[in-house]
Parts: sequence; C-alpha cells; structure tokens
Amino acid sequence: MSGLKSNRGNFLEDFAVGQTLEHPTPRTVTAGDVALYTALYGSRFALQSSEIFAQTCGLHLAPVDDWLVFHIVFGKTVPDISLNAVANLGYAEGRFGVPVYAGDTLRAVSEVIGLRENSNGKTGVVYVRTCGLNQNNQDVVSYVRWVMVRKRDEASVIAGHPPPELADHVGAQSVLSRTVPDFSNFDFGLSGEPHRWGDYAVGEKIDHMDGMTVEEAEHQLATRLYQNTARVHFNQFAEARGRFGRRLIYGGHVISLARALSFNGLANAVKVVALNGGRHVAPLFAGDTVFAWSEVLDKAEVAGRDDAGLLRLRLIATRDLACAQFPLPDEADGVILDLDMWVAMPR
Amino acid sequence: MSGLKSNRGNFLEDFAVGQTLEHPTPRTVTAGDVALYTALYGSRFALQSSEIFAQTCGLHLAPVDDWLVFHIVFGKTVPDISLNAVANLGYAEGRFGVPVYAGDTLRAVSEVIGLRENSNGKTGVVYVRTCGLNQNNQDVVSYVRWVMVRKRDEASVIAGHPPPELADHVGAQSVLSRTVPDFSNFDFGLSGEPHRWGDYAVGEKIDHMDGMTVEEAEHQLATRLYQNTARVHFNQFAEARGRFGRRLIYGGHVISLARALSFNGLANAVKVVALNGGRHVAPLFAGDTVFAWSEVLDKAEVAGRDDAGLLRLRLIATRDLACAQFPLPDEADGVILDLDMWVAMPR
Amino acid sequence: MSGLKSNRGNFLEDFAVGQTLEHPTPRTVTAGDVALYTALYGSRFALQSSEIFAQTCGLHLAPVDDWLVFHIVFGKTVPDISLNAVANLGYAEGRFGVPVYAGDTLRAVSEVIGLRENSNGKTGVVYVRTCGLNQNNQDVVSYVRWVMVRKRDEASVIAGHPPPELADHVGAQSVLSRTVPDFSNFDFGLSGEPHRWGDYAVGEKIDHMDGMTVEEAEHQLATRLYQNTARVHFNQFAEARGRFGRRLIYGGHVISLARALSFNGLANAVKVVALNGGRHVAPLFAGDTVFAWSEVLDKAEVAGRDDAGLLRLRLIATRDLACAQFPLPDEADGVILDLDMWVAMPR
Repeated sequence: MSGLKSNRGNFLEDFAVGQTLEHPTPRTVTAGDVALYTALYGSRFALQSSEIFAQTCGLHLAPVDDWLVFHIVFGKTVPDISLNAVANLGYAEGRFGVPVYAGDTLRAVSEVIGLRENSNGKTGVVYVRTCGLNQNNQDVVSYVRWVMVRKRDEASVIAGHPPPELADHVGAQSVLSRTVPDFSNFDFGLSGEPHRWGDYAVGEKIDHMDGMTVEEAEHQLATRLYQNTARVHFNQFAEARGRFGRRLIYGGHVISLARALSFNGLANAVKVVALNGGRHVAPLFAGDTVFAWSEVLDKAEVAGRDDAGLLRLRLIATRDLACAQFPLPDEADGVILDLDMWVAMPR
Repeated sequence: MSGLKSNRGNFLEDFAVGQTLEHPTPRTVTAGDVALYTALYGSRFALQSSEIFAQTCGLHLAPVDDWLVFHIVFGKTVPDISLNAVANLGYAEGRFGVPVYAGDTLRAVSEVIGLRENSNGKTGVVYVRTCGLNQNNQDVVSYVRWVMVRKRDEASVIAGHPPPELADHVGAQSVLSRTVPDFSNFDFGLSGEPHRWGDYAVGEKIDHMDGMTVEEAEHQLATRLYQNTARVHFNQFAEARGRFGRRLIYGGHVISLARALSFNGLANAVKVVALNGGRHVAPLFAGDTVFAWSEVLDKAEVAGRDDAGLLRLRLIATRDLACAQFPLPDEADGVILDLDMWVAMPR
Repeated sequence: MSGLKSNRGNFLEDFAVGQTLEHPTPRTVTAGDVALYTALYGSRFALQSSEIFAQTCGLHLAPVDDWLVFHIVFGKTVPDISLNAVANLGYAEGRFGVPVYAGDTLRAVSEVIGLRENSNGKTGVVYVRTCGLNQNNQDVVSYVRWVMVRKRDEASVIAGHPPPELADHVGAQSVLSRTVPDFSNFDFGLSGEPHRWGDYAVGEKIDHMDGMTVEEAEHQLATRLYQNTARVHFNQFAEARGRFGRRLIYGGHVISLARALSFNGLANAVKVVALNGGRHVAPLFAGDTVFAWSEVLDKAEVAGRDDAGLLRLRLIATRDLACAQFPLPDEADGVILDLDMWVAMPR
C-alpha cells in the first residue's frame, strides 16, 4: 500500500562488477527530435543540417547529431545508474559507431566495470561501460563513465574492486575508416568555412566568440527529450532545499551548447568520432551564459584515406566568461566543461 | 470598420441542446508533434517510445500518446466552446478509439447535450459530447465535458435543459478488445518495470515520487501545439488584471505531466482506454512543481483476452506537495487534479 | 594562435555592390520544424495544418508556413550580412515562390544591391536582394532587405552607391497564378471562418483580439531553429552591457506572432504571396505581450482565376497595447511592426 512499485533508483550497494544492465526503454529517433535539437542549440554543421549535403558525403540521409545520439543513450542509463548520483565524474574511451538516422530505434546496455567506496563511508564511485545499439544491434556509441553514487546505508560493507584501467585517449589508428564520411566532394562554400584539416596546427587555439544564455525551459525540454529522469534537473521544489538551491542543468546540455558554438571556427569538423575524456568542472544554472573555445591537441590521418583527417580537440566551456583569453579549468573561475575528443574533417 | 470579422467566442446564449459544432481546423499529426510531446513531459512508455516495441504489440508503428490525441481534439473545440469559459468543470464517458499514427489527420465534432444557467445570472454550464475523428472518420477519442461559460448579457433568458445523465464510469465490459494492444510478446525488460496486471491490488496506492517544475514557456509551447487558443493561457498583459494576476496553465498540461510521472510505478500501463471522469481541483501556475500518485480503484479482464487486463486508476496531481502521504482533494491543500481512468496492462 | 578562424562577421567595409554571397549552410526542412513552428506561434491556418485540406487545394502535402520558409532563408544570411548589424531597417519586393514541403532542402543566395555610409562615420546601410532556393533551384522566397551595419574602422572610406530603386509594393498583376492554391473546393467549415475575399472591403480594419506574451526560451528556440546566429538574441551576458540591457527578440518572431494572431478575422487568408514592405518600428523583449490588427489596403483579382483573390494587408503588431483602437506607428507608443503584404484568399 505504499508505493513499493516506484523506482527509487539504485544505491552503491546495488551494483557489482560484472553486472550487466539492459536499460529500458527503447526509443525511435525521428525528424522531430532532430528539429528540437536544432532549436535547442542552433547547430549548423552542414552534414547534419542538409540531406543533400549528407548525400554528397556518401550517406543516404542526414545523420542525427552525434551528441543527440549520445544524450539519448545516456538518458536511458539514468534510471538504473545515476538517479541517486551526487555527481557525474568523468568519461573515457568513447567511440561513435554507425550513423543514426531518423527512424532508427536505440537502446542501451551497460556493464559495471569498477566500484569503490569513498573514505567518507557515505558515497562511492561506480564505473560503467555503456553501449548504445540500433535496431540491428550495431553500436552507435559506446563510452565509459564514472559517477558518484550514494550508499543506501552508511553501515553497509562494499566489496570494492580496483577501478578499471582506462586509456588516456582513444588511439587515432583505432578510429574505423567507415565511421568517417566521404569528404571527397565536400563543398567548402556550403559548409560555412574554408578551413581544411591541413589548416589547423597542433597547439592552435580557437575562440568560438559567441555566447548563449540558458533558460530553465530550454534545459528541461532538452533533458526530457533525452528521457533523462535525473531529479536534480526538474524539481525546483526539492532543489530549493538542496545543495545549490536551484535546478542543476544536465551536463550534456553544456556539451551540446559548446559543440554548437564551436561551429564558429570549426565548421568543417562535422563528425565527432571519439570521446577521449571529459569532465564537468562546475555546474551550470539557468540564466548563465555559455562560451567556448577549443585547442587542437593532436592531428592524425585516417588509414587509407586522403579525403579526411582527424583533429584531437580540447573543448572548454565557460559560464559568464568570454574565452578570448582561453581560460583553463585550474586557472580561471567560470570553466564548466573540459572535453577531449577526436573529430573528422575534410583534407 | 471595426473588427467584426474576429471571433469573440460563444457565450451561453449561443448554445442550444442538440446543436452540432464541426470544429475547425483539421490537423495532421506528425513525428514532430510526438517529439515535442516527449520534450514537454519526458514520457517514457515503451509502446509510444519505440516503433519496434509497438510492433511487438501488434501495431504497425508507435502510436501517438493517448493524451496528445486528447489535447489536439480538445484544442479544436476551444474557439467554439470555451473561449469565454470561466472554468473547465469536468469530464465523463471518455473513450479512446483507434490508434493515431504520425500522418493521421484529426478533426473534432461536438454536440451540445446539456445547458443550464447558474443562479447568479451571469454564467451557466454547457455540456458537450466531443468526438475526435481521423481521416477515415474513425473515432480516436470521444468524451463529455462541461464548462462554465459567461453570458453575453445578464438580462437574457436561457432555455435550460436538464443536465444529461452521465455514467459514473465507463463499464470495463464495454472496452473494445481491439483498442487494447496485443501484449502476448510484451518485453518486461525493455518496458521499464516487471509489474504485471496481476501484481496490482484494488486499493493499492503508488507514489510516483518525482516532481516536475513548470515554466511559462513550456505550457505555452504545449498549449499552442494543441492549437488551443483559450486566452487565459497566453496573455499576461490581460491576466495581470485578471482573477489570479497570472497566466493559468491549461489543465491538460497537468494531465500529461501526471501521466508521465506515473511511469514510475505504472510503466506497463502503456495504454489509456477510458476516461471515467476528472476534474481540475485547483489551478497550476508557472514555477509550481507537480507531483502525482495513483490508487487502483478496480481491476477488470478484457473479454476473450488472457494477455491483457484493465486497471481503473485514480490519478491525483498536486502542486508543491510531495505525495508520500497520498493527499486527497478534500483533505489537503495543493491537490490540482483528480482523474479517473481505465488503463490496459499486460497480464 | 588567436582564434583567427572564427567568423567575426562582415563590416561595412566588406561589402561591395554587385557582390554575390552564397550563404552556408543548407537546411532540410522537416515535419519537426513544422511542429515546432506550431508550438511557437499556435498557427491554425488550415492549408498548413492539414495534409488533407492542402490536398483539396491542389497541393500534394501541407505546405510549410510561408514565414517559416522566410525565417530559414533569412537565418542563412545572418552570418554573412547582419552579424554586426545595428538594426534591420526594412524589407521590399518580397515574393513567395513554389511551395516548400517537409523534405525540401533550402539554401540562400544574396546580392549586394546598395551601400551607403551614414553621416556619423560609424555605420552604414547595406541593401541586399536575397533569394531562397530549394533542391531543384526553384525560388521559394526572394526579398530585398536593408540593414544598418557597423564599420570596422571609422577612418575607412566607403565607396558609396545610390540605394536601389525599390517598388513601393509588388504589383498584384505580377503575382503568378501558380503560387496561389486552388480554392475551388475550399471548405469554409473546416477553415475556421466563413469570410470570403468578397467580404473584405478596402479600408476595413480588423482587430485580431488575442494577445501573446513572449518568453526568453521561446524566442531563443525559434531563432535557433532558423539557425539565425545574430548575437543580440542569445547572449544576456553581453546584452546586459548593451543598448537595451536585454536580449532583443528577432524581428521575424514578431512577424510570425502577428500572423498567427491574424487568424482571428483572417482565417481564410491562408497564403502569403508577397511582402510589399515592412519595418520593425520598435524592439520587443521577453515578458511583453504582442497584439495585432490588420487593415485591408487594396484588393485584386488573380488573372484567369475565379476561385481566388488577393488582399493587400497592412499588419500592425504592438506590445502591451490592445488593438481595438487600431494604433498606428506615428500616433501610438507600443507599435513594433508595420508590415505590408499580399495574401491569397478564396472568393
């Protein structure tokens, strides 16, 4: 008689290394999701914006934005993994797989690969490797994330397990050629900028210039679109009494904002192929304005391809802090995101 | 020369029992509407979320959410029936018919079935039976609602008519088997919860736990999506001088929020088959946080079906009031919705 | 090492008469965009709302709203033309071409047709003729606009050029019959109003009655949907120090709000065929409530057609000012838009 059928989410005690979680509920992605993604971030990358541009890149339709795919897969994992999370600590070993098109149906499966209690006895860290799959069981994205989770009972004893060994970054040579679109006929007039892979230098820094102020309605619409149910994003009544007194914005919303802003200077980086790592340095709240800048960390060729190259980018997002001075997490207040990824560009 | 072509809405004097209203304007429902519905409420019911899950339930595509269908049909009736409404008083005898899919075109027809003046001489109550139809003239939803409407002129004499006799609830035996999806191959792993029809007991109460804070932009987007033009939802300039000093949120927005929250504990109640009754107990305003709980009022079999059963649910929504104590309209401040419906579940 | 790859936008010095700008990035319009447009404005014109209604008007699908087409084309021009604009001054010679359907891919091309420096030496005016094209290189909309743009350097000398001669309005006789849907079977019951072309008189004024309050999230979603990147709409951090202290709402948002409000009294004006002229008289900010009224400036037949006629309408929008008194720009505070267009209606 007392709500026992409701899901209160898993606590640290509920996880065990080796455990596999098949996350509900599957989701068919549509042109509606794509339009909302455009409305939420203003993304302009030509590959995702135009069916015809996508066809000149060897795809039969415009693919769904890489981060929209990521957010939908991530959202599926929240009820099982992070409903009681204190913080989403980091990402590693992320790879984007086959393109997702409107009409595809996505689901997510996670394996627990690490578990440890924090010394305070109240929380711990769970490491999971999540795989997003389409209706043909093809990988669309996979990544490791680790998250701080509450214990149900401070007295309980947790069978710890050493954290997994995680690669510092995804090796460029392991990026599959088939995940990189065909850029042989890339139209630099329509794409928005003339800059090719060869025009970027390791160490180069790019201020993406523009700022985007976030409203409560926007991040709530986004996070619900991803069917992400984490309570901190939606419930002002509870959050008014919480850590920040306010609703916390889903970290993925910041990633997508920064990615959309990065069009200005990186318009031809049309495809994200790997997520090397990343962390949400500080929270974002409604009313804050997000800025972003990028640094080219590395460059790589794609085996057997002379039309495409890879850039390893560090993408930094800030709040209420313009990026002309390229602020870094350890040096400046206001940095909220520090992301490391490989993107594919035309040569 | 004076705006005589504009619709000021109907007043009590404009209605007569037996009158039929064919409401403009028809509306083709699309994948875009479905995506917006997800973004507005975060609904996760597997039947509506996944084309493939729907196909395992014998449908050829994912059906449009029952309440989205209801809201679109309801919206069509507003310019004719409730533009000058003081309050939407209640619903009865609601039935959901054939599934609606993206691409279907909906229209609405209402018949006035009751009319009475209030003793204050300023307002009255109009009862209508509304039927939503698809492009093949099949019923998609029908329901009775009654609404308090202003008189144009206090002096006018209204030909009253006894209120119609309305069933206390829709008889379970009258629910058509063909409106209940085929649950023979229902995947309880993907649907989100293991609970079957047999796991619910009459009298059982379920706290849906989560809370959702509503923003002005959200309810306005929703209500416009339904092409519902009732003025109280949109015009802060006028409402600042009105009853509440604020824009009133469309009652259907509360229904959809409560329904989406009810996933937590009722994930397998994937199909609403009847609206037995309901009333908007108190208004909701932007900034309020909505919570919900359900009580199982009754259970019923579906004739000739051993894969599916019906639950009669009372769905209560509150504002700024968590539902662990199962607050009731007559006992607690903060209750805003009291809805009674039949839902279909796998056995 | 300093963000040289980012686009800072063009300044007055960067324009020359005769210059052609092929704007990135192409955009495939979908049912998702259409649904968002409905959610943003609540538009109810039957031709765009119902696939079946559109088919009775000789189209194979419901066409995309004329102003959504305009905004997408306009948005493409912003990074090249008005990123550093002080104000969008006016429109002329606008024509809507072939219908746009979900699935079409749009791009935009502009030619600079006039250029002059302002006497303050700090700014100037650029005149462009923009053409929106579909994937078959058919015109979907074309128009002239002129915009006040900052100089990069006050000392620079601008090769002025006389402003182009612009028609006071588009000649009705030049409206192509094929851009006017077939109204022979127009259903006045479903369209929302009984008024035909013949029911409107030159000089007639129509108060559209309703008001719509705008939220920050709404105009930001709209403007990003159009991939319009003008900074003044999005960056509160910068605008707090700017001219108004607030984010400025994209003028096109006002056009679409006023057009949607105009349904009330002009429900059968289902097709905009020409934009004779227009100016944004004053800015709109979030929290303001928009009202609208129309005046019939002229009437015209469509050559060879007895099913359709044209109305030349002046559409006025206001903020926080009801329109029962038909306020004019030069007489009343609160007028924000003064638009002049030809619309097609059934006879």
